[in-house]
Amino acid sequence: MPRLVLSIEYDGSAFEGWQSQPHGRTVQDALQAAVAAIAGHEVALSCAGRTDTGVHATVQIAHFDTDTVRPLSAWVRGVNAHLPGTVSVRWAQEVDETFHARFSAYARRYRYVLLNRPVRPAILAGKVGWHHAPLSLPRMQDAAHLLVGEHDFSAFRAAQCQAKSPVRILTMAAVRRTGDLIMFDFEANGFLHHMIRNLVGALIFIGKGEAESDWMGELLQMKDRRLAPPTFSPAGLYLCGVSYPDRWHLPGEGRIIGTPAIVL
Amino acid sequence: MPRLVLSIEYDGSAFEGWQSQPHGRTVQDALQAAVAAIAGHEVALSCAGRTDTGVHATVQIAHFDTDTVRPLSAWVRGVNAHLPGTVSVRWAQEVDETFHARFSAYARRYRYVLLNRPVRPAILAGKVGWHHAPLSLPRMQDAAHLLVGEHDFSAFRAAQCQAKSPVRILTMAAVRRTGDLIMFDFEANGFLHHMIRNLVGALIFIGKGEAESDWMGELLQMKDRRLAPPTFSPAGLYLCGVSYPDRWHLPGEGRIIGTPAIVL
Repeated sequence: MPRLVLSIEYDGSAFEGWQSQPHGRTVQDALQAAVAAIAGHEVALSCAGRTDTGVHATVQIAHFDTDTVRPLSAWVRGVNAHLPGTVSVRWAQEVDETFHARFSAYARRYRYVLLNRPVRPAILAGKVGWHHAPLSLPRMQDAAHLLVGEHDFSAFRAAQCQAKSPVRILTMAAVRRTGDLIMFDFEANGFLHHMIRNLVGALIFIGKGEAESDWMGELLQMKDRRLAPPTFSPAGLYLCGVSYPDRWHLPGEGRIIGTPAIVL
Repeated sequence: MPRLVLSIEYDGSAFEGWQSQPHGRTVQDALQAAVAAIAGHEVALSCAGRTDTGVHATVQIAHFDTDTVRPLSAWVRGVNAHLPGTVSVRWAQEVDETFHARFSAYARRYRYVLLNRPVRPAILAGKVGWHHAPLSLPRMQDAAHLLVGEHDFSAFRAAQCQAKSPVRILTMAAVRRTGDLIMFDFEANGFLHHMIRNLVGALIFIGKGEAESDWMGELLQMKDRRLAPPTFSPAGLYLCGVSYPDRWHLPGEGRIIGTPAIVL
């Protein structure tokens, strides 16, 4: 049966996560209903990264199988006509049955956008995390540098994480400031449950001077979630890129890692 | 009675405009209730620019009078504790009674943020305008250039506009692209009702090739609203700066014109 890939953008504050739930208030439920309306039959979507409640995506990748033949534009504009305003399909493409949105992906990229100013966000409420006090960028950059490489990330893994191994290869951990916003960019072969929100919590803890940059290395070595700072808010987290091997010739956002983010 | 100035940020999609209404769902109503809770008496706010339903502000300036003595932080954090998440006070400052948020302002700056891509916005739904087809940046820039200077803007004035004169001095009209976003920046001594949304409508009309750039000059000369393209959506419009004479020593955002905007 032909397989189709979709690139999807959504405002995570409007949904209770990606993963389908009986109550139906998830991104997957909204998308499966909209795709089914165009396909004329029920569909099951598999995605690259199952985002939590409140987590956004500028580039989420998902696939489904259908025998229904439609022009690609129907899988974009037709599906969008059946979706709420907080989610949209960016592109659709046909692939062979060896492609899997989750298992074929060799890298994911997430951005955490933190508003760092005395006053809470208003225009970007729900779209950015917030910390009111000054943060040291060099301290956070030094700490982030210690995360790059192959590590056991047990210190940053939620108790309910179902991954078989806590080892991941982090290929990028960058921190930079743009006005009142601090951008935390992470790229890895995969991420553990709550891993980025836990990493951001630890980086902010170091940035406000509660610990030295080197403490990040110690946290990694101690492999104990109870010793690391609390999980940070989901509001600023964006899945913004997924990488697949070239042989599927996916459009830019899916193959080359995307760089979009919100800047206020 | 001492006079206080506030700088305010809000998500216009959460309110039915600035101006107080009997139904109470306006920015002014929310702010007056929150300020009254701190002041201990009713207050009347006057603002620099009364934004329409759906129009945002990164920098709105408003003043009110009170005999209640509070630290400035109470007029910021205290008021914010009484406001919904979609509006926040950025700073407060005391001024003498010669200051008036509307009449003392000598310039206002607005930014229109347009998402220019085939697929509608999802993350920034309600925060950006949208046009699906390609637009010529040079054509729009040439047309915008013709707007700068002192002109009768009757062609871009809403029928219900209550201004005494249709003449305004436009000191800036700039158009630039950042990825999928086009930013239209305008600065003037004042704006007529719907003026920027009407100007953006005309610029997009020219950008998509329906008219030559020079047509903007003809529209200005004809002074007839019925000949110009329709009013564009409020979703992408941000009041982002108000200028006052130096003698009140207002913080940067109010005195020096602010430059914040959303970039996806």
